[in-house]
Amino acid sequence: METGRESVAGTKRLPRAVRERQMLDAAVTCFARHGYQTASMDEIAELAGVSKPLVYLYLHSKEDLFTACIRREAEALLATVAGAVGDPDVPPDERLWAGLLAFFTHAADHPDAWVVLSRQARTQGEPFATEAARMRDEIAAFVAGLIGEAAREARDGAAITERDVTALAQALVGSAEALAGWANETPGVTAREAAATLMNFAWAGLGNLMKGERWSRR
Amino acid sequence: METGRESVAGTKRLPRAVRERQMLDAAVTCFARHGYQTASMDEIAELAGVSKPLVYLYLHSKEDLFTACIRREAEALLATVAGAVGDPDVPPDERLWAGLLAFFTHAADHPDAWVVLSRQARTQGEPFATEAARMRDEIAAFVAGLIGEAAREARDGAAITERDVTALAQALVGSAEALAGWANETPGVTAREAAATLMNFAWAGLGNLMKGERWSRR
Repeated sequence: METGRESVAGTKRLPRAVRERQMLDAAVTCFARHGYQTASMDEIAELAGVSKPLVYLYLHSKEDLFTACIRREAEALLATVAGAVGDPDVPPDERLWAGLLAFFTHAADHPDAWVVLSRQARTQGEPFATEAARMRDEIAAFVAGLIGEAAREARDGAAITERDVTALAQALVGSAEALAGWANETPGVTAREAAATLMNFAWAGLGNLMKGERWSRR
Repeated sequence: METGRESVAGTKRLPRAVRERQMLDAAVTCFARHGYQTASMDEIAELAGVSKPLVYLYLHSKEDLFTACIRREAEALLATVAGAVGDPDVPPDERLWAGLLAFFTHAADHPDAWVVLSRQARTQGEPFATEAARMRDEIAAFVAGLIGEAAREARDGAAITERDVTALAQALVGSAEALAGWANETPGVTAREAAATLMNFAWAGLGNLMKGERWSRR
């Protein structure tokens, strides 16, 4: 009987996708709270409302579970930002603003996911650091695509080389990462405030900020 | 006799500070090459030209040795940047340029140290991740001090709050970190090129770059 296994585990019958989502949600919370080494499969199962054998059946091991968390959260973040940036008809600064606002809002709304992604994934050694680096490269490539489009549209775009674009994308991703960590840890800083700071930094530049000239919508 | 201990270890007599420096140099190379877990005390001792017992006598454990590497390299980096930035009489953009050029040159000239500092220290878990974060906070505070000075000097400086300054420093440090990693891994990218990219990004801003307006010395 199909229900046999879950009955043994003493859990209610739910579609596998729903169960897996519950497990990953619980895992992200536990990993963010205790770190990879200390988080226990017992606590994750309890928080997900399932038996521990079911967690192993679906996600195989703690290592696989952690990797699945990194993948899911990175994909969710990228999808959110890509969705917000919208189509190329919108002016590049508006697209950047929309992307940054979506990014900081997502990081603020999912602080546990952001801790797992930006910190745990890197600080728990291999193979997670490589997985995190792969996701980071994907996001940097996406941002480079945006900057490249903007450069091609701009009148003097020809002056910005492919390598410039890649380097600027690295700088932008690095600054966004650092600022999101700071914003989430600093009481009272909103996602909108963090996005505005980075928009001013990245688009207007420090030189203009010092003269009191900030980025503003046209 | 004072020489007794070193004679037993079968090494030539050298001042302790010199020996320690040799050990740390060798350790940075080995850690960068193999990672913290895989690097062996045997190889570090051999590369330093000393006996393994002497390494343990001076640096106590692999963990202490790694922590000493992180501290030494972070302090060296900070001292280099602080020295290059110079005094407050110089215009803020010139100081930023000098600091960035010194930073990227240091990272390029000491690629092993940069790997240990920016990657190994974080990816090898605790207690190193906390030590690396402490050093990073120190550098961010130094950069915030510079941006704060520049803001106070600027006519409209009052419009930039303390929190803005802290946030901008986080963004700048994050972008510098990301770009240094990319520059060291990308063949043909010089320290000067990376510094110029970040100077344009951080001072002129993407908005001006898209219009073909780059930062230039006055």
